[in-house]
Amino acid sequence: MAITILKGAIVSARSLGKLDITEKGYLVAENGVITGVFPVLPEHYAGAPVEDFGDALILQSFADLHLHAPQYPMLGMGMDLPLLDWLNAYAFPTEARFADPDYARTIYRELAHELISHGTTRVCMFSSLHTDATLILMDELEKAGVTGFVGKVNMDRNNAPGVLEETTEESKQETLRWLEACQDFTHVKPMLTPRFTPSCTDELMAFLGKLAAERDLPVQSHLSENSAEIAWVRQLHPDCRQYWETYAKYGLWNDRTVMAHCVWSDERERKAMRDAGVTVVHCADSNQNICSGVAPVRVMLNEGLKVALGSDIAGGDHLDMFDVVASAIRASKARRMMDGWQTDFLTVPEGWYLGTSAGAAYFGEQPGFAPGNPLHAIVLADDRLPQPHPLTPAERLERCVYRRQPGAVRAVWSDGRKVFSAE
Amino acid sequence: MAITILKGAIVSARSLGKLDITEKGYLVAENGVITGVFPVLPEHYAGAPVEDFGDALILQSFADLHLHAPQYPMLGMGMDLPLLDWLNAYAFPTEARFADPDYARTIYRELAHELISHGTTRVCMFSSLHTDATLILMDELEKAGVTGFVGKVNMDRNNAPGVLEETTEESKQETLRWLEACQDFTHVKPMLTPRFTPSCTDELMAFLGKLAAERDLPVQSHLSENSAEIAWVRQLHPDCRQYWETYAKYGLWNDRTVMAHCVWSDERERKAMRDAGVTVVHCADSNQNICSGVAPVRVMLNEGLKVALGSDIAGGDHLDMFDVVASAIRASKARRMMDGWQTDFLTVPEGWYLGTSAGAAYFGEQPGFAPGNPLHAIVLADDRLPQPHPLTPAERLERCVYRRQPGAVRAVWSDGRKVFSAE
Repeated sequence: MAITILKGAIVSARSLGKLDITEKGYLVAENGVITGVFPVLPEHYAGAPVEDFGDALILQSFADLHLHAPQYPMLGMGMDLPLLDWLNAYAFPTEARFADPDYARTIYRELAHELISHGTTRVCMFSSLHTDATLILMDELEKAGVTGFVGKVNMDRNNAPGVLEETTEESKQETLRWLEACQDFTHVKPMLTPRFTPSCTDELMAFLGKLAAERDLPVQSHLSENSAEIAWVRQLHPDCRQYWETYAKYGLWNDRTVMAHCVWSDERERKAMRDAGVTVVHCADSNQNICSGVAPVRVMLNEGLKVALGSDIAGGDHLDMFDVVASAIRASKARRMMDGWQTDFLTVPEGWYLGTSAGAAYFGEQPGFAPGNPLHAIVLADDRLPQPHPLTPAERLERCVYRRQPGAVRAVWSDGRKVFSAE
Repeated sequence: MAITILKGAIVSARSLGKLDITEKGYLVAENGVITGVFPVLPEHYAGAPVEDFGDALILQSFADLHLHAPQYPMLGMGMDLPLLDWLNAYAFPTEARFADPDYARTIYRELAHELISHGTTRVCMFSSLHTDATLILMDELEKAGVTGFVGKVNMDRNNAPGVLEETTEESKQETLRWLEACQDFTHVKPMLTPRFTPSCTDELMAFLGKLAAERDLPVQSHLSENSAEIAWVRQLHPDCRQYWETYAKYGLWNDRTVMAHCVWSDERERKAMRDAGVTVVHCADSNQNICSGVAPVRVMLNEGLKVALGSDIAGGDHLDMFDVVASAIRASKARRMMDGWQTDFLTVPEGWYLGTSAGAAYFGEQPGFAPGNPLHAIVLADDRLPQPHPLTPAERLERCVYRRQPGAVRAVWSDGRKVFSAE
């Protein structure tokens, strides 16, 4: 039996707003599965090797539940444009380059490395419509140690003719070919990915819903990001009272469904998400960058919805989840102001929970370093920063959320395996 | 005569929203003063040495018009607290440590280096109330090549008894002692710095106003940052209709006055700023972090106010002005949403102007790389980033605003001197 013992200042997000802290503690896993966090090493682990990280922070790694891999090359561009213009001017032409497998290999290898070296070990990720590039992406994630779900994008209408398009038949056939090839992967699994309602014909949506049911596949897409988009969906589906119903009517709406944004979801749409157990992915940077709005995260949390965070590159401009957590906190303060100071902002421990435990929950984990969870952890050194006074682990965590520290991530574990070491 | 010639992709902010771009251009200075930007090197410079930076961007360096040097050690901390609690729990105890000159020397040397290596060459900066530490700060800035203004802080009431306090008499005497010693510096000059109205007795304010007039000294302070603060000022100065009048009545309100924040300045207060020629420093990160609000920057610009940017560390959590520009842009999008989509957000070229030319104007410069300006410039390499398509210099600038690139600043000039080189 393989025993992993990490020693350091262990901080985890046990529940929304509540940190568990064990200074000079031991985080122990057997065969990659956490058995506990201990202030003193239990007798029966005596003699097992301990990786002692001294005073460094040992934290849960991140879950990024919404990002577009083929938009990685255009990170931080086109931010003066609104969503639909930005898609046509930047996103579609950039994604189109992934028809070239060599280009895909180069870019996706770099992306996978950047994810792991910044402590993101679980993802729900959009690829492009290209089957081969999607398989290359999954291969690179698998090799780097990133776990989770990836989707070949389906988009058979309102796409970019001559640039990025597929017919309904191509979309179906390629999805089947892709699913066949996905069986090669252990840690990265397929997820059905209609781009968003305006991009998919009814025929294709029906096909994907049937596939989801037959093969027990999870689904990801976009929902109620922007008011122009919502109006467009209403035009396309006059039979649906709300945007979410365009997914629900095809069987794409259940407790394994992940919906990015939900900026404009009203009480009724939020109730539909809660009732179905849909996971909302809040993408604060992206929503603010392309002027979509600021999602009512506090209200969603109060109502009991499942909410996690996404970098949403390249609408979002930060891949590093430390930044994504900080952005979610900052956005919640903007939202507070927009709500006439009526809603509470996200505190640092709350933001941290959303970026770690809340995302991990989608993969079946319990909050924090709970026994039974696969070991997903990062070791973070902050000793190069000045100390204004002796800092508590919670203060140190806060500072690490806000401050960029190149090279501060010392080591990363993903599903029990050590996948990154700064040494 | 010393001639400096820099070759590269030259981008500068000529006016709000308008970039001047000269690819493979020559930026020329004689004795540290810019003579022009040329697509072809003029004949009479033939033979002079050219520093050829290839395809790298050559940009104006930044002006950071509001930051608190002694809060540098607590960067990114206490962000869950509102302004007045945050001052007592974090800012005052942290500043108090600068009674120790050795501590000041260590921290300020690091701060000065971080400013220069990230391309900030002009500042208006708060020190603490400590005269000796303030002189050490000015010395370290001078040595590193940072130019501009620094103020010993005056705060003789409502301070932190036993932690950070000075009597009225001490404040006066120390200010005079400090001003005497400031004559040793060439590029860093003194600026009178009443912390904010609640921190200064009427007697001290009157003293500072008299000093400003007698010695022709500029003034910096805080204005209308937070609604609790504004209510407090009203209580303290029942004779003043608005916050700004508490500065104006003591002669601290003129065209060399710099006022940070102005989040809640209404039309009347804004008119008072415009009429007097006061410079507003917008500190987007700080205002959002400690839930002060989002300043109406677009309205101020439309009304013809002078507006520049400040990192406001450590209410702000980013010292790097690339981030500060991005934050100002993002905040303007939040403000747009708060204004019912009625005000335009700041575009990237507009944000860039505010972080460079608008701040430089306070120091008497013309916008962009105008002939007659002292040479303040940074060379920025972005060749490690992937290219989604062949990028224009404007697109490259946008990406550099949004993306963190450790080590991307290759060289910095400040007032004609090369003060940083990554080699």
